[in-house]
Amino acid sequence: MDNRFSNAQRAEVLTQALPYIQRYNGKIVVVKYGGNAMVNENLKEQVMEDVVLLWLIGVKVVLVHGGGPEISEMMNKLGKQSEFINGLRVTDKETVEIAQMVLSGKINKSLVNFLEKEGGKAMGISGVDGKLIEASIKNPELGFVGKIDNVNINPVLDLLEKGYIPVVSTIGCDNDGNIYNINADTAAARIAGALGAERLIMMTDIVGLLKDKDDPKTLIPTIKVSEAKSLLEDGTISGGMIPKIKCCIDAISHGVKNVTIMDGRIPHSILMELLTNEGAGTEVVADNG
Amino acid sequence: MDNRFSNAQRAEVLTQALPYIQRYNGKIVVVKYGGNAMVNENLKEQVMEDVVLLWLIGVKVVLVHGGGPEISEMMNKLGKQSEFINGLRVTDKETVEIAQMVLSGKINKSLVNFLEKEGGKAMGISGVDGKLIEASIKNPELGFVGKIDNVNINPVLDLLEKGYIPVVSTIGCDNDGNIYNINADTAAARIAGALGAERLIMMTDIVGLLKDKDDPKTLIPTIKVSEAKSLLEDGTISGGMIPKIKCCIDAISHGVKNVTIMDGRIPHSILMELLTNEGAGTEVVADNG
Amino acid sequence: MDNRFSNAQRAEVLTQALPYIQRYNGKIVVVKYGGNAMVNENLKEQVMEDVVLLWLIGVKVVLVHGGGPEISEMMNKLGKQSEFINGLRVTDKETVEIAQMVLSGKINKSLVNFLEKEGGKAMGISGVDGKLIEASIKNPELGFVGKIDNVNINPVLDLLEKGYIPVVSTIGCDNDGNIYNINADTAAARIAGALGAERLIMMTDIVGLLKDKDDPKTLIPTIKVSEAKSLLEDGTISGGMIPKIKCCIDAISHGVKNVTIMDGRIPHSILMELLTNEGAGTEVVADNG
Amino acid sequence: MDNRFSNAQRAEVLTQALPYIQRYNGKIVVVKYGGNAMVNENLKEQVMEDVVLLWLIGVKVVLVHGGGPEISEMMNKLGKQSEFINGLRVTDKETVEIAQMVLSGKINKSLVNFLEKEGGKAMGISGVDGKLIEASIKNPELGFVGKIDNVNINPVLDLLEKGYIPVVSTIGCDNDGNIYNINADTAAARIAGALGAERLIMMTDIVGLLKDKDDPKTLIPTIKVSEAKSLLEDGTISGGMIPKIKCCIDAISHGVKNVTIMDGRIPHSILMELLTNEGAGTEVVADNG
Amino acid sequence: MDNRFSNAQRAEVLTQALPYIQRYNGKIVVVKYGGNAMVNENLKEQVMEDVVLLWLIGVKVVLVHGGGPEISEMMNKLGKQSEFINGLRVTDKETVEIAQMVLSGKINKSLVNFLEKEGGKAMGISGVDGKLIEASIKNPELGFVGKIDNVNINPVLDLLEKGYIPVVSTIGCDNDGNIYNINADTAAARIAGALGAERLIMMTDIVGLLKDKDDPKTLIPTIKVSEAKSLLEDGTISGGMIPKIKCCIDAISHGVKNVTIMDGRIPHSILMELLTNEGAGTEVVADNG
Amino acid sequence: MDNRFSNAQRAEVLTQALPYIQRYNGKIVVVKYGGNAMVNENLKEQVMEDVVLLWLIGVKVVLVHGGGPEISEMMNKLGKQSEFINGLRVTDKETVEIAQMVLSGKINKSLVNFLEKEGGKAMGISGVDGKLIEASIKNPELGFVGKIDNVNINPVLDLLEKGYIPVVSTIGCDNDGNIYNINADTAAARIAGALGAERLIMMTDIVGLLKDKDDPKTLIPTIKVSEAKSLLEDGTISGGMIPKIKCCIDAISHGVKNVTIMDGRIPHSILMELLTNEGAGTEVVADNG
Repeated sequence: MDNRFSNAQRAEVLTQALPYIQRYNGKIVVVKYGGNAMVNENLKEQVMEDVVLLWLIGVKVVLVHGGGPEISEMMNKLGKQSEFINGLRVTDKETVEIAQMVLSGKINKSLVNFLEKEGGKAMGISGVDGKLIEASIKNPELGFVGKIDNVNINPVLDLLEKGYIPVVSTIGCDNDGNIYNINADTAAARIAGALGAERLIMMTDIVGLLKDKDDPKTLIPTIKVSEAKSLLEDGTISGGMIPKIKCCIDAISHGVKNVTIMDGRIPHSILMELLTNEGAGTEVVADNG
Repeated sequence: MDNRFSNAQRAEVLTQALPYIQRYNGKIVVVKYGGNAMVNENLKEQVMEDVVLLWLIGVKVVLVHGGGPEISEMMNKLGKQSEFINGLRVTDKETVEIAQMVLSGKINKSLVNFLEKEGGKAMGISGVDGKLIEASIKNPELGFVGKIDNVNINPVLDLLEKGYIPVVSTIGCDNDGNIYNINADTAAARIAGALGAERLIMMTDIVGLLKDKDDPKTLIPTIKVSEAKSLLEDGTISGGMIPKIKCCIDAISHGVKNVTIMDGRIPHSILMELLTNEGAGTEVVADNG
Repeated sequence: MDNRFSNAQRAEVLTQALPYIQRYNGKIVVVKYGGNAMVNENLKEQVMEDVVLLWLIGVKVVLVHGGGPEISEMMNKLGKQSEFINGLRVTDKETVEIAQMVLSGKINKSLVNFLEKEGGKAMGISGVDGKLIEASIKNPELGFVGKIDNVNINPVLDLLEKGYIPVVSTIGCDNDGNIYNINADTAAARIAGALGAERLIMMTDIVGLLKDKDDPKTLIPTIKVSEAKSLLEDGTISGGMIPKIKCCIDAISHGVKNVTIMDGRIPHSILMELLTNEGAGTEVVADNG
Repeated sequence: MDNRFSNAQRAEVLTQALPYIQRYNGKIVVVKYGGNAMVNENLKEQVMEDVVLLWLIGVKVVLVHGGGPEISEMMNKLGKQSEFINGLRVTDKETVEIAQMVLSGKINKSLVNFLEKEGGKAMGISGVDGKLIEASIKNPELGFVGKIDNVNINPVLDLLEKGYIPVVSTIGCDNDGNIYNINADTAAARIAGALGAERLIMMTDIVGLLKDKDDPKTLIPTIKVSEAKSLLEDGTISGGMIPKIKCCIDAISHGVKNVTIMDGRIPHSILMELLTNEGAGTEVVADNG
Repeated sequence: MDNRFSNAQRAEVLTQALPYIQRYNGKIVVVKYGGNAMVNENLKEQVMEDVVLLWLIGVKVVLVHGGGPEISEMMNKLGKQSEFINGLRVTDKETVEIAQMVLSGKINKSLVNFLEKEGGKAMGISGVDGKLIEASIKNPELGFVGKIDNVNINPVLDLLEKGYIPVVSTIGCDNDGNIYNINADTAAARIAGALGAERLIMMTDIVGLLKDKDDPKTLIPTIKVSEAKSLLEDGTISGGMIPKIKCCIDAISHGVKNVTIMDGRIPHSILMELLTNEGAGTEVVADNG
Repeated sequence: MDNRFSNAQRAEVLTQALPYIQRYNGKIVVVKYGGNAMVNENLKEQVMEDVVLLWLIGVKVVLVHGGGPEISEMMNKLGKQSEFINGLRVTDKETVEIAQMVLSGKINKSLVNFLEKEGGKAMGISGVDGKLIEASIKNPELGFVGKIDNVNINPVLDLLEKGYIPVVSTIGCDNDGNIYNINADTAAARIAGALGAERLIMMTDIVGLLKDKDDPKTLIPTIKVSEAKSLLEDGTISGGMIPKIKCCIDAISHGVKNVTIMDGRIPHSILMELLTNEGAGTEVVADNG
């Protein structure tokens, strides 16, 4: 513990977190972990600390992660050439196997290991375990890129009941023994929906949804689903923001109370979002929320 | 929330509390509440906040309180004259009834009410409920001043299991329907012992145990039971400190891991003691602790 | 055991109670305790015996008590002058504190103590514990006289589940830390309603509802809610009987199956009411009951 | 309900049973049912009432029954001749089948039916169900007369846990599919022992153990095991009393706290024994009991 | 183990049973046991083996049995003359008692004993235990032949929950203490219905439902309820088959998924029906099944 | 289902498996999966079928797997050169990361997927999840080759309790966030020991322990621990057999009842070992076993 704060100040800060702790005690919060916060070692440690802290104060945290850049890196190392159709990468059997290794073997276990080093009790699973994510082919030309047909949420609930922090890598399965690569944002949204989560936090590398996408000062702190749909239609929301926002809307429609597109580049952004009076990014809420 | 700290600072402080939260999560902490912290309204609010915060982060807090000054005040209001034998007040039937009213009616319910106002879930009981404290006469000349014969800890465990903060007023009972006034320090020590508590915190109006009782700079931060016994024998510990220290030794011998004589005049002293690297007062620990 | 009955006679009587025991086994019975049965020491002992006996044969008894006369007595002793508005006593902060002391400290703990002396396992709580009774001001001129806004029945259910006889003193609370004096008849009716009690027994000092209030021989043994409403309208029911009957009707409308205005001056009236073929007083039942 | 007692008297009697009800609440009481009380219809009804009453007030009653006379009667009806060796009846395959039919079919189901008619919840099993009584041949010449090798008490505990009154017919089984006739006194003693029962009541047709077996006024109300052994050795206990007393001693040695040889000819003798201050017959207790 | 099959073959066969085991794991299967399979010792042993095997692989088997021939045999042995009205036997008090003895005493306990010899854990009950089958008189002239008024399925569920194979003899009871003889097919159908069983298997001595009742090659392997009703109306189904089919229809209408009239003369017919791709007999299924 | 066996034969075979099913019902069996059975697709499918079948008949199967050849293959693909010291491969950070990917990502998830395709309910974890395997460096020169310091068996028990087949990849962790490669045989032995498993089956590519290692006809079907130790000392056991046998002895000493070195090249060898009268390979048992 450094000495920038006196213990009296520490106590004061803790006390001021009281109403926030109270609000999330016993509630389910799904964190979609990705972007810079997953690459930068400093930020990574802070996210792990944040998750363990939430877990200790009684929040049921579920960590859902992807791993795009590391999959590409491994493919390069293995000299695997990707085929592209209309600019979209084709995921053949070998590619999905690499994704499976990187996501469920490398990243997933490293996150579990990190959480436990910080004092948490974690278990890493994938969408294959207990058939959590049942998927099928989205577009035959793209190979094993899966669309989610069904989420069997029991494996996550079993782990929560036993007191673990579930860490989920987003590969899916079907009844014929195939494995699919699943978009992590979509998976997080569907898992949060199936859990009826209190909050879904999507960690990103942007400040949030902007009225003018080139001016960070035009951040929209809160937006209703109907308003977001309008902005999608009129083109205000564009580019990579489109699927993100669609995921948020999807999660809300599946029963999540509040979805936040959070700037994961800010240190301890999860704690700040949940335990102080000021969040970072854009909250999407139901029209009647 | 005032603005003395930025949210980033808040998050940092919370994170630094992580190892402490971890240490007390699921553990039983008994707080003997009394002295200035019970009279000064500001301190009182802070104690209530501290207790609710601990409860929210998974600590099983048990609050044990006395109420000496308020009993005297009520006796004065009622014009009740106390008889004294060798300087000790005689507790007749009427006196014990006044104590019962003030402790279990006025103070106990006010504390429960305060904890719930802060967001806690509390239930106030006395040593009579579920025969928690079985007592008998200590000295016939002094009347209904009870010595504790037995602690039936089930009522406290039942409330903890149901998620309440038990708030205990220290009156006792026997099988003949008598009620006794019980010393709150002794009751707290015995209850903590019966619970095998992780910590017993005795709130006082002193800085702690001093080597030279007139020099606050001679504070002994930690003392082993055997050392404390030596100081009792050689007279270093004297006056009102004697029964306090005896209570601490008694609690340790009944299985409490760590007893702290804490300076309750310091704001948020409970939080500082449990969640930061620096306590206030003197810790008494077992010789092999 | 005296010898007025032979053991054969005792066995016979016990056997004849069989169908009644069967009927109430596992059911909730709320007893509003008050009046002479609370003042006369002989009657008091008999009520305590009755409650413990019911508890032992598997009835879930909840004891709700007021304590008007003792509050007045304490106010006199303290020299507290009551202010009156239109003949109604104003309950200022000091008055409600005295009520709190007398009800939750003196009477409540004495009842718990008495039940345990008779072999029961009891726990005394108030409307403040676990926020059992949430109240607000009824009439600003009268001060802290509360009307019940909400009954959180969990504290009572928790104690029943853990095998205690809950003993409830009728003070209420709000979210701002205020405490209110609550009419005990009303509180008993609302608590019985929230519990969906099988029976609510209101102990009184009258023989029951009379057709001619001056002729005890005109006792109405059973009355339907609609009939009671007629008698209220046509003025047959008058004076202090009006709020009693209104409480009964209220309890029935909240789901209690049977409310009895019982003559508490008769020894063992509760046992007779529940375990023999002849009750004392007036039963109020639903129209379709 | 007849009118020999006023309701006030009834209430008084019930109240006086309080300490007895308290004593047996939640305890296991095994009743060996047999003799006149099983033949005389009036007594039978009273035993059934007693058992259901005990069950309702929270006693865990286990009814163990034999049925000697009815077996003989059925053998006569079937024209089955018994072979005798040294005066002891040989139990061949056909005989044990008749015993099985009469005990587990006729008597057992009739008792269950009777208990349920009185409002109890009963389930009738035999020593074969769940292998409750494992037996082997005692004396090859006598055929299928079993000695008990093992008592698997789980079936009885399962029924008690599910709230039934277990009614046990005393036939036994082995691993080869044989069925044995088992002495009901012995079986009751062993079952009570395996349950660690609070009480074992052996219903008989005698007043109890007499100092002078011809003088009913010489009844021994309580006897210690060591004293009983002396009386066996010096011949004071003789005839049919020998095996009864040996069973009692056996039960005590297996952990039963108190065994009573009770006069089943007295109406409601079970209730009187358990719920009043005066029993009927002889209590056998441990030397240190 | 004989040597007709190599262990490799055994393993192969076991593996091929996999999907069938999977299908019935955790499901309730009611077997109405009767006919030749109950008389022929070889078949009997095979049925017991089949039931224990199903129980071990996680099927919740309930065995319901009658015992017509053995009742008649016992009546003959006892020289009891039956009275007949319009060709139907009158069941007087003595007759029902004989049925009770034979069914619940002789057959029921022998089956339990047999199942346990094969390694199962069984408990034998009747329709009287826990008031499983509540009945009343069907036709006053026929005496105690019961029609089923109500099935209280809890006793069966309690035994299943505790891991037993419930073996049920079909006698019934009423609230006045009478016992009734109940048709076993009807009882099995109603019990299966109350359990919402996956399968009801009616063991018979016929090959199944035939289009031409004289030609076994015209077996109908599966029939819908509506088709069965047509065949009843047009007289294709006749004689003893009528009540069987009516029972099947009744069971389906009470919620059983699939009822099979099975040829019990074929060795291991239950195992073949449930664990291979080929059953024996006729399946009756819901129209939309 | 092919037609090599009649359904009657199938039923017969199933019945003969009865005593074996009974023996392992509810017991824990740990299978160390490796060798040919993991590479050959036909054998792999059969192992998966065997495991699911055992799981369905109530055996608590735990699958522990290594993956040596696939790790080497991946290292080759990645062009990673291994350094060797005294012929032992050095496991640097990059190597352990590859092992982690292959074991926990590729193999583990593929096995889970396969088990679920066969109808099982599986969850794949590693020694990192819930800190199942705590390890430290064995030999600093060899890098992250771990020796097991501690097995926290709770994660496996949690999954068994929730009805999953735990599939465990053998990497380990320490408190500093390091990950270790763990020998799968050793891990399986230690996990089986911590579970007090009934059986540990080590799948190998040999026929078992041979008296003359060049003559398969000298197979030792059963060996006691003391005998095995002698054979280790006198050199009869040599080469790669030494660590295998040491693992077996270690498992027995940690409480496993029976360890089998099984020839995994034989189809359905697990089923044959557990459910028929003839195993394949060598059983190691305790001296008093």
